[in-house]
Amino acid sequence: MSDIEREVRAVAERARDAAAELAPLGRAVKDAALAALADALVKRSDEITAANAEDVERAREAGTGPAMIDRLTLTPRRIEDIADAVRAVAELPDPVGEAVRGYVLPNGLDVRQIRVPLGVIGIVYEGRPNVTADAAALCLKSGNAALLRGSSSAYSSNTALIGVLRDALEGTGVPVDAIQMVPGRTRESSKALMRAHGLVDVLIPRGGRSLIQAVVRDSTVPVIETGEGLCHVYVDADADLGKAVDIAVNAKAQRCSVCNSAETLLVHEAAAEEFLARLLPALAEAGVTVHGDERVLEIAAARDTGATVVPATEEDWATEYLAMDLSVRVVPHIDEAIAHIRRYSTRHTEAIVTDSLKASRYFVSRVDSAAVMVNASTRFTDGGEFGFGAEIGISTQKLHARGPMGLTEMTSTKYVVTGDGHVR
Amino acid sequence: MSDIEREVRAVAERARDAAAELAPLGRAVKDAALAALADALVKRSDEITAANAEDVERAREAGTGPAMIDRLTLTPRRIEDIADAVRAVAELPDPVGEAVRGYVLPNGLDVRQIRVPLGVIGIVYEGRPNVTADAAALCLKSGNAALLRGSSSAYSSNTALIGVLRDALEGTGVPVDAIQMVPGRTRESSKALMRAHGLVDVLIPRGGRSLIQAVVRDSTVPVIETGEGLCHVYVDADADLGKAVDIAVNAKAQRCSVCNSAETLLVHEAAAEEFLARLLPALAEAGVTVHGDERVLEIAAARDTGATVVPATEEDWATEYLAMDLSVRVVPHIDEAIAHIRRYSTRHTEAIVTDSLKASRYFVSRVDSAAVMVNASTRFTDGGEFGFGAEIGISTQKLHARGPMGLTEMTSTKYVVTGDGHVR
Repeated sequence: MSDIEREVRAVAERARDAAAELAPLGRAVKDAALAALADALVKRSDEITAANAEDVERAREAGTGPAMIDRLTLTPRRIEDIADAVRAVAELPDPVGEAVRGYVLPNGLDVRQIRVPLGVIGIVYEGRPNVTADAAALCLKSGNAALLRGSSSAYSSNTALIGVLRDALEGTGVPVDAIQMVPGRTRESSKALMRAHGLVDVLIPRGGRSLIQAVVRDSTVPVIETGEGLCHVYVDADADLGKAVDIAVNAKAQRCSVCNSAETLLVHEAAAEEFLARLLPALAEAGVTVHGDERVLEIAAARDTGATVVPATEEDWATEYLAMDLSVRVVPHIDEAIAHIRRYSTRHTEAIVTDSLKASRYFVSRVDSAAVMVNASTRFTDGGEFGFGAEIGISTQKLHARGPMGLTEMTSTKYVVTGDGHVR
Repeated sequence: MSDIEREVRAVAERARDAAAELAPLGRAVKDAALAALADALVKRSDEITAANAEDVERAREAGTGPAMIDRLTLTPRRIEDIADAVRAVAELPDPVGEAVRGYVLPNGLDVRQIRVPLGVIGIVYEGRPNVTADAAALCLKSGNAALLRGSSSAYSSNTALIGVLRDALEGTGVPVDAIQMVPGRTRESSKALMRAHGLVDVLIPRGGRSLIQAVVRDSTVPVIETGEGLCHVYVDADADLGKAVDIAVNAKAQRCSVCNSAETLLVHEAAAEEFLARLLPALAEAGVTVHGDERVLEIAAARDTGATVVPATEEDWATEYLAMDLSVRVVPHIDEAIAHIRRYSTRHTEAIVTDSLKASRYFVSRVDSAAVMVNASTRFTDGGEFGFGAEIGISTQKLHARGPMGLTEMTSTKYVVTGDGHVR
């Protein structure tokens, strides 16, 4: 075992002990600790921004682009927002202790299945340092110890943030080791975290495809895959075309850089001509480049839509643009739309626009994605929009949690069975 | 990619297609298919026992012991029992389609979270060929395609069983590829299954510790760990000692070879003398060897209990005997019992025997196991006992499912969100 592996395991062991202390704590203690975290962030804002300036400086020297620099930068105002988000987490209901099922067996045994914390949650994340406080707050509220492994680009910021958060836990009743930074900034340290099976209960990677795939490949700790979103909108023959235009434009363009934005539009042949005649000018106005199949190119060529339409390649159907690009295909029937989705979707969110109840039932029962929207934008797949208050990520796997993960999804359960000397 | 890997992936791809067809099927179709499976097993009993005879012959030649031979052997009577178990699965409620949550957002969006099949479930199992039909039936009922990888010792039996099951699916509406055998009998073929991330949704290993650990280590497919059970019974100072004796003996001896049997007994010092004076003769009568700490040896030496008591070693506390052995330790207080459990338990099932409400609340909130029994035997942690009708295994991990896994635990969910042209 290497030194860094030993160090990471030691941190994970302390997290495990902290998790055991944290699990039985009541909501009042946890909420007071969250308030202390928020206050400390604001109070020690100067230290945090000073540390952040080092990261920003390093990023500039490395030639990082302005958008990434902006994502990395913390200002006093942004730190206030982060603190407000922590306070908002305190306002949310505590999932721990909720009875999920409960019944009495014929032999008189009382069976209750109750929510308990998962234990130790490892978060491996890229980029923005606001995730540090967000993730720590969500873990604490749900009774879990947090092991935070941010990107090396935000190392100084994360070190400062986690130092402030840990100091703030002193005297709150929540063990300080409930929030810890994974030591080291090399691949070896994140690998040690991924191999801490038995110490860490779950790993949640937050970031791009390559990060998530690396965690899935290397981890012996159970992983929840999040955030890959190649989402589709299917406009059915029976769609209200005005609503379909609104939904398609919103799903693509309202915020194109996020996982729940649409990347591919599928249009039923019967609606294609009229729908595209209305949609293409709207996409042009929104600044969206269309990657169309032959039929789309044909329809676009027949009129002046103002849209930029380029031929779609096979690669386009498999691309999560996260940009103002939309691939568009005309399909002969709903089954072809479903087959296309099955082939290319990351199973995050798919939408159908239709007034046909039959078509919507058919689509909903056959499209196997975390969220299926009927006459609504894919952009609604979000913990905030779903009313969860906050989310730790959007799961695109089927095990444990699927779709937006709020506090409830950060828990496990246990059975408590009470008898009076019962034996088999 | 090796030939066997290609073959396994081809089988998994067919399973994926079958799962897509299976997911929207209603209960009536699935139940009729299950009835057809049961009928076919009985009807073609001769073929199955003939194939089984080959396995038994091979095992005998390899010098396999009589207990293992018995576990491997299929008789017409045992096949009837297997068929009855399949029919019993048909009687259970179908979890698919159940609304887990449902509400309307302030903007009018209707959000429903509904149960859907997991998709493709891989089962890697040892020994008994009855698991083959059991697992296939539970997967089918919950709308999942089953990829079955039994042990090479039961290869001929499993080949025959799966052949019969697949033939029986013809014409039922359930795709034949919903039940498949993983090709090959080498490690390479099971490794290929473990690496089929994106094709297989979950792997459930059923067997001994080494099998489970190998699957956890090698799998990129999400795994549900099952069945390791180093279970504890803690007899508190305030226990009813008569009930405590019954529970301790039952937890150990009613069936010692299974995961929910107790391996370690912890006794509060205040109750130790009187309790052990009553327990040791009962354990002696049941044929249990006691591995005691110094205090236990002392108490045993002071009277004639008839029990075999040997000194416990450090290794004893960490051993899942699965035999008529019980390690026994006297603890000074409940916190020491909880600390012992945290150190050695596999977090399957722990029991407290007490009449103190305070002690029971304390124990329940601090012991982090899939099931915590109060005044009841550990042997009750079982899908059948819990009223689930059947179980695919007992999960000892915290993600997705914990404790006995019935049909409900073999499902995922998806969100169905219905609007009327909603955009953000």
